Amino acid sequence: MKICVAGLGIIGGSLALALKRAEYSVAGWNRSQKPLEYALNNNIIDEAAADFKKFDLVFVALPPKAAVKFINENEFKDGAVVADICGVKGYLEKEIYKKPRNFRYVGTHPMAGKEVSGIENACANLFDGASMIIINGEKSDIYAVQLLAELSAEMGFKKIIECSAEEHDGKIAYTSQLAHVVSNAYVKNKEIEGCLGFTGGSFQDMTRIAGVDENVWAELYLLNGEKLSTQIGSLVSSLNEIKTALDGGDEEELKRVLKSGRETFEKNKG
Amino acid sequence: MKICVAGLGIIGGSLALALKRAEYSVAGWNRSQKPLEYALNNNIIDEAAADFKKFDLVFVALPPKAAVKFINENEFKDGAVVADICGVKGYLEKEIYKKPRNFRYVGTHPMAGKEVSGIENACANLFDGASMIIINGEKSDIYAVQLLAELSAEMGFKKIIECSAEEHDGKIAYTSQLAHVVSNAYVKNKEIEGCLGFTGGSFQDMTRIAGVDENVWAELYLLNGEKLSTQIGSLVSSLNEIKTALDGGDEEELKRVLKSGRETFEKNKG
Repeated sequence: MKICVAGLGIIGGSLALALKRAEYSVAGWNRSQKPLEYALNNNIIDEAAADFKKFDLVFVALPPKAAVKFINENEFKDGAVVADICGVKGYLEKEIYKKPRNFRYVGTHPMAGKEVSGIENACANLFDGASMIIINGEKSDIYAVQLLAELSAEMGFKKIIECSAEEHDGKIAYTSQLAHVVSNAYVKNKEIEGCLGFTGGSFQDMTRIAGVDENVWAELYLLNGEKLSTQIGSLVSSLNEIKTALDGGDEEELKRVLKSGRETFEKNKG
Repeated sequence: MKICVAGLGIIGGSLALALKRAEYSVAGWNRSQKPLEYALNNNIIDEAAADFKKFDLVFVALPPKAAVKFINENEFKDGAVVADICGVKGYLEKEIYKKPRNFRYVGTHPMAGKEVSGIENACANLFDGASMIIINGEKSDIYAVQLLAELSAEMGFKKIIECSAEEHDGKIAYTSQLAHVVSNAYVKNKEIEGCLGFTGGSFQDMTRIAGVDENVWAELYLLNGEKLSTQIGSLVSSLNEIKTALDGGDEEELKRVLKSGRETFEKNKG
């Protein structure tokens, strides 16, 4: 199977490395030259891809709009599998399924990452133990879904989850996008000045992802805007419920509110 | 120097272990019998304390109201150092300085902990690399502050921070209490059902402390209620600022809002 990874950032680079670890040969492509050279010089890819029609599988590891543009502007082999790895899936499906395609599209979302970006942070074990979400909805190509499931296991993913784009986007608004929003909001506080030394593990955890690139995340947020907005609203309600109990000064009421959060967590943490 | 740790939970137990590691002999006391027996059987303390007047240093590792009660109801050696480890300091000072004392009071806050509690989770290296906050305000006893600073370094703390109770309570409302509130609010969401597999590191970080004991934290929150309430309000404002930009659908405006959060973080993360 001839594989190409288009887009050599931390995710694309790590996909290439995980595929090479599983003994596949991997070609690479990137919009700009430097990451491509880095990938070649550091043995992250085996060769630079020129003609995408040569490949049986193309991973498109680009942001959502760039991924759609790449897929629309290039030609792929008849029946080839083309897989994107974007953090929003409804938008991708809407764009890809607008017209008939000669290739088999499949949406995936590797649930791993770091608070840093770029090919120089790629590593072969980034996905070890992580979940891989594969979109298997009404329009999905069963062969492509199955291929990606098998390949994901070979790349080190521990759990393969199949769901619709709609379910993905709803869950991800809560588990991932909201976390990034909270981290960004948390640090925008005048108390942060001079608070070094007053911080423990809980502050570190809360702010680890506060430095992520807004150019990447703003696009993801907006393409899932309605669902993410609902989640922010829901969190604000829960925060205000605690604030109201706190302002009321009634310890039993405050304990009751906190207890219901803790119990919801314990019931669902698995 | 004869040392006693009163209150054998995770913090008291870890203080005892860190002191023993530094070759001090440590006596222990607890309100209930079981943790005391556990501490004796597992060599966490050297002996059970009977008469607190025997000790040169008494660590009071109890929740705030219980700590004040313990200090008021017991007698200590003239000039002994009595140190509490509570997460709120203004309340402690107000209560302790209500009347003249024959001992030297000092407020401390070891900036380390776990999402679990109890003596069975105590460990000698809990404070290694952490910050120790020591209250050094207008009424503080310089000898007690100095003793605790020296001892903290011996116990493995990396950074000793001296500040007023007022500054401590303001900073801690933001760096610690708010993080616990956010984690509790984050999990109180109907999306949490069935979201296993859709979670990555950012969700794990955001929710690690969601299961802490509300009986411990409600008291801390209420004793620092005004400052914590202000912090919750400030976070809600920042969240709503992002939500407004998101709802507006303007990518440049959303990037601007997110960028100002990221830059504040980067300027202050040290």
